[in-house]
Amino acid sequence: MAAVTIECCPPIARQRLNESEAAELAVLLKAVADPVRLRLLSMIGSHTGGEICVCDLTGAFDLTAPTISHHLKVLRTAGLIDGERRGTWVYYRIIPQQVARLGALFTPLAETASP
Amino acid sequence: MAAVTIECCPPIARQRLNESEAAELAVLLKAVADPVRLRLLSMIGSHTGGEICVCDLTGAFDLTAPTISHHLKVLRTAGLIDGERRGTWVYYRIIPQQVARLGALFTPLAETASP
Repeated sequence: MAAVTIECCPPIARQRLNESEAAELAVLLKAVADPVRLRLLSMIGSHTGGEICVCDLTGAFDLTAPTISHHLKVLRTAGLIDGERRGTWVYYRIIPQQVARLGALFTPLAETASP
Repeated sequence: MAAVTIECCPPIARQRLNESEAAELAVLLKAVADPVRLRLLSMIGSHTGGEICVCDLTGAFDLTAPTISHHLKVLRTAGLIDGERRGTWVYYRIIPQQVARLGALFTPLAETASP
């Protein structure tokens, strides 16, 4: 995987966010501020090959398939994951640029400042 | 500022989160998944000297002081900021270890993997 391009928003410890940046990032953060969605995101992102069949996601939770589908849709709407139907199943992968925006936002000044 | 120690949780793109890690991180993410709290966090973190008087925070928003206080309390309860009363005012600063946990969580594999 090549280095990703991070759009929008310096780390919170370096520069004030303006109102529109904060509003947009809050939507993204609400999408991940849920234990099931965090676990889904980590299962998708850490799976060998970078993608995972929805059939392997539903079995890992004590939740119904429609509930898992709802959470996947929230992540997809936020642009954090993408899915591709191949035959019977949908295969999900992380969109690293969007995940990296959150990483960059909370990476403190000490780790990102120029020397 | 020295390098910070990051406790808990590898990047989501490297390893599955377990249930208790996901539950704990979701609480932390809910605390920041709000436009006003994101802006407060960025104002506190980016302020010269690393701390800011509450008197300089309230003036920047079209919100009442009790509303700002509520948002500051949420951030403080989540361990993302700390406050110290000196005379009339409380002065807030970021707790970099806690903010860095969020940064590390969303830093993709490509940027954190060993060569």
